Amino acid sequence: MEKPSLPSGTRDYGVDMMSKRRFILTIMEQVFRSHGFGQIETPALENLRTLQGKYGDEGDQLLFKVLNSGDFLSKAPENALAEKDSKAVVSSISDRGLRYDLTVPLARHVVMNRDKITLPFKRFQMQPVWRADRPQKGRYREFWQCDIDVVGSNSTVSEAELVEMYFEVFDRCDLKVAVRINHRGILDSFLPILGSQEAWNSFMVAIDKFDKVGQEGVAKELVERGLSHSLDAWNWICETAQMEDFNSLISALEAYKPIQNESLQKGIADLKAVYALVDGALEQSKCKLQFDLRLARGLSYYTGCVFEVVTIDERIPSDFKIGSIGGGGRYDNLTGVFGLKDVSGVGVSFGLDRIYDTLEAGNLFPQNQNSNSILICCMDESALVVAADIARKLRNSQLNSVEIYPGAVKLKKQLDYANAKQFGWAIILGENEIQQKSVTLKNLITGEQRTVANADIHSAISNNH
Amino acid sequence: MEKPSLPSGTRDYGVDMMSKRRFILTIMEQVFRSHGFGQIETPALENLRTLQGKYGDEGDQLLFKVLNSGDFLSKAPENALAEKDSKAVVSSISDRGLRYDLTVPLARHVVMNRDKITLPFKRFQMQPVWRADRPQKGRYREFWQCDIDVVGSNSTVSEAELVEMYFEVFDRCDLKVAVRINHRGILDSFLPILGSQEAWNSFMVAIDKFDKVGQEGVAKELVERGLSHSLDAWNWICETAQMEDFNSLISALEAYKPIQNESLQKGIADLKAVYALVDGALEQSKCKLQFDLRLARGLSYYTGCVFEVVTIDERIPSDFKIGSIGGGGRYDNLTGVFGLKDVSGVGVSFGLDRIYDTLEAGNLFPQNQNSNSILICCMDESALVVAADIARKLRNSQLNSVEIYPGAVKLKKQLDYANAKQFGWAIILGENEIQQKSVTLKNLITGEQRTVANADIHSAISNNH
Repeated sequence: MEKPSLPSGTRDYGVDMMSKRRFILTIMEQVFRSHGFGQIETPALENLRTLQGKYGDEGDQLLFKVLNSGDFLSKAPENALAEKDSKAVVSSISDRGLRYDLTVPLARHVVMNRDKITLPFKRFQMQPVWRADRPQKGRYREFWQCDIDVVGSNSTVSEAELVEMYFEVFDRCDLKVAVRINHRGILDSFLPILGSQEAWNSFMVAIDKFDKVGQEGVAKELVERGLSHSLDAWNWICETAQMEDFNSLISALEAYKPIQNESLQKGIADLKAVYALVDGALEQSKCKLQFDLRLARGLSYYTGCVFEVVTIDERIPSDFKIGSIGGGGRYDNLTGVFGLKDVSGVGVSFGLDRIYDTLEAGNLFPQNQNSNSILICCMDESALVVAADIARKLRNSQLNSVEIYPGAVKLKKQLDYANAKQFGWAIILGENEIQQKSVTLKNLITGEQRTVANADIHSAISNNH
Repeated sequence: MEKPSLPSGTRDYGVDMMSKRRFILTIMEQVFRSHGFGQIETPALENLRTLQGKYGDEGDQLLFKVLNSGDFLSKAPENALAEKDSKAVVSSISDRGLRYDLTVPLARHVVMNRDKITLPFKRFQMQPVWRADRPQKGRYREFWQCDIDVVGSNSTVSEAELVEMYFEVFDRCDLKVAVRINHRGILDSFLPILGSQEAWNSFMVAIDKFDKVGQEGVAKELVERGLSHSLDAWNWICETAQMEDFNSLISALEAYKPIQNESLQKGIADLKAVYALVDGALEQSKCKLQFDLRLARGLSYYTGCVFEVVTIDERIPSDFKIGSIGGGGRYDNLTGVFGLKDVSGVGVSFGLDRIYDTLEAGNLFPQNQNSNSILICCMDESALVVAADIARKLRNSQLNSVEIYPGAVKLKKQLDYANAKQFGWAIILGENEIQQKSVTLKNLITGEQRTVANADIHSAISNNH
């Protein structure tokens, strides 16, 4: 008999873990709905032609591909089979793959339902995605993304709303975070310094590593990449990024001569608009908004504001490093790849698994609210029918959770179960109690027990709080 | 540009559909939790050796297999490749597959976590499963199962609880159903009439078709299968199954001489216990419990009670046929296949997609409760910051859902959006309103509008109900 196991990079969520995950998911959902976002779900299986070519070569490598049904080899090219050329064979034996993110499925959904969907389309989606990445601490092959997007509007009202929703979610999770913000227009304004789009791309890849390698590390890489002419700009960026005050930072940008161009103006205008809109939210929140010139978010499809969320909560142990727990930005051509042009969108993602790991590391999950839960223990089989009636009445009166131990086994075994599952109360039913239409009610937290008439159980439990 | 599409047998759940699905899921979850069931989730990806051999040959055929990463052909046998022998190649190129149901993953989870889990283990799980079946109306390749199981107890308290939970869920969905119940012990008691286990198996397969082909159809098949000697028993079963009264049915069973054996006694004792326990629930519920001697539920792993749920609601159009919307039973050896013996369990499943289709067919979903939702429309960009503050205050005061239209576009466009999304209220903000610290509040259902001071918006909306 082989010991059962799970595929590498996947995991079960047991009862305790699920209840904590649901704590986070419920907060998100309430915040999303209070801002008028509606939920959609898309299938795990997508056609490979929908997924391929959307995430770069590296992303294509990480797609999980599903074998066609039946006689899947029938269409495979013989030469490629003989040479065991996996790359040449794959497209003939696999038409479908597992969803890699929630953004491409959103674009596909919008295009396929363009006649039914009213723009701007505000949707949230919370589902697993799959990547055939090398598993490591905090990185799974099957993990959840929770995305909110506004599709079909180019107003910065949406950027501001997303930032505000980050604040609301993390405030309600009692986790202090910084939302880092930058704008691709501001990064684009450095193009004249770099001299070519290629050099600019190379610059972005280098500065994106700042969090890992620091200012000097990035400088070293810039030299290696033949971008020595950008070192002054890089050092200026790092120095300016130290400023904490948004207005001072804007003034510095406006005074830095090499980047005075339309891109910069657009970037500054958008950021000013966002800051004005979230001002009231910032006052209410424990979280921070940090304009960070070094935030690039790769060479992805972003075209306006970009965001990234990092923990700044003192209660998280300093040796706990997990990177960003959320991020996103504006993309001006989400649906273009599926033939629908000129639809701008903006969206952010919440990394559920990393948020979970962070709250767990800081021991920040609220304690289990199980003190109202009741286990009914029967001393003999004939008591079970009475127990069923009592349980039904208590459930009808909105008590949290009522169980009958299945079977009149030894009382110790029943109470061990009650302790393991952390019940608040035990109701013990024997012949005497049944004759007197009463129960023995035991408070499992204090250990006290007393006899209570059946009709009074609900009030006895409710009043004990 | 290729038009994007979905794989056959899969579908998107859009906003409206999702909110109806969530209506059902929320009811289920509340009922499950009120009975002390805890949620788990397992990965979509399982090792194929976990899945294979558990669902019969037919099931194995229907497993979706995931291609190994990288150079997947490297371990494939050359001969088999040359002959394009898909069956001989598959095990060398695919180690993982998609979950086929939630029962095998539950067994795997229990065995892998046997040291941490307190028995009896009451879990619920609501996740998609995948089957490479031929898609047709009401049958998808990716669909949801919602399972509740009690693992590690052989008390009929659990059977009764599951039946009661069926009643509670469907009562709260306002759908009248019949829970059909039978017992494998009662079916086993017919073994002496059949003469051999093989003949008995064949008998079960035949009578399982009763719903489709009727009494005569089954009789015809019994003759074809060489089971003419079982025709008397079959006719007796059909006649007896007409009885509506449980006690009369039991008396009939006790009087039918050919089946008087231990299996029958065990079956009758269990059913009597279940009926006694759910008696009070039956009085409260619109649903019915029907003892049906013809219910076999295939040759699956069930060993005790078996259940099946069918709609009996007069509001469902009579031409709407969808089969059972739930089912399950007791299995005495769930975890045996993974090396953990003597763990009895009992569980039932809710077919979310079919329940959805049924409620939709009867037009039984409650109307959208969106009358409290508010759209704030700005007449110019400078109003947006004021709108953000108003929206924040309304959300803090627990109003349902508040949106700001992103951008000060033409009012008509904003109101069209409000109508399309069925908002209850529009707040219109222009220069005048801002100067007077007031808004124009428009009831989108009645069309009435009036000027309201900012401080009074909340009460104006709340009191209009």
